[in-house]
Amino acid sequence: MNTSPTKAKTRAITKTIPEQPFAKSSVADEKITGHHFYGNLYDLDRQRMNDMEYLKNLVTDAVKIANMTLVEVKAWSFGGKKGGVSVIALITESHVALHIWNEYNYATLDIYTCGEQSKPEKAFDYIVKGLKTKDHRKFYADRSM
Amino acid sequence: MNTSPTKAKTRAITKTIPEQPFAKSSVADEKITGHHFYGNLYDLDRQRMNDMEYLKNLVTDAVKIANMTLVEVKAWSFGGKKGGVSVIALITESHVALHIWNEYNYATLDIYTCGEQSKPEKAFDYIVKGLKTKDHRKFYADRSM
Repeated sequence: MNTSPTKAKTRAITKTIPEQPFAKSSVADEKITGHHFYGNLYDLDRQRMNDMEYLKNLVTDAVKIANMTLVEVKAWSFGGKKGGVSVIALITESHVALHIWNEYNYATLDIYTCGEQSKPEKAFDYIVKGLKTKDHRKFYADRSM
Repeated sequence: MNTSPTKAKTRAITKTIPEQPFAKSSVADEKITGHHFYGNLYDLDRQRMNDMEYLKNLVTDAVKIANMTLVEVKAWSFGGKKGGVSVIALITESHVALHIWNEYNYATLDIYTCGEQSKPEKAFDYIVKGLKTKDHRKFYADRSM
């Protein structure tokens, strides 16, 4: 077992996932390919960030657009100073998670997919646009096996 | 709006999150502090990786041990060549996600928390141990605001 506390191999990545579906090959068939886009969203639209139905639909549509398969989507609301809304979608290919902090007008977003045909960055960008953010940061982690 | 496709700032991180609770300060009160441990788990225990109740309990216990607050935990089973089990927990502080691929005897794990008092690495290690993995890789992403 690897016992090092934080064996770090997270890579700073500048490449963009290709828009065309990933090529299927015998190698691809034998491996799990994982793409994880995540980031911070700033200055969201105040009305939309509190509308749980809107948020669930936004995530659902993002999943479709990214060629991913929704299994279940759910939203929760939290009170308090650091309260807000969380939306999590289980997809066949992994998950989407959106956490919004109302008081900070701030959110984090994770689009993690193991689907070879998925376009996770499209989902990320769709949600950013749907929340009318004034700024955002987007990162990528290779989650392949 | 930041329109660069993948403005990467994911950092290779070697530091370990301190075991003691994070110091509360006026600065901490004003910001969202995010810690995200994620990684790959290899050669899981065959019996445990298919036991949905065991997996849900494992994630639930990991959440407690890491001083995080469970809101809801759910498990789903998938068939097919790339089938297996997914467990997702919404926690007050963000989420935990475990995706298992049976045929590959492989899993990925995400422990993402914005709790200043949370110990997410403990949760990661607890789940790794609970699945009796023969090897794993662990990465860290700073998810702070």
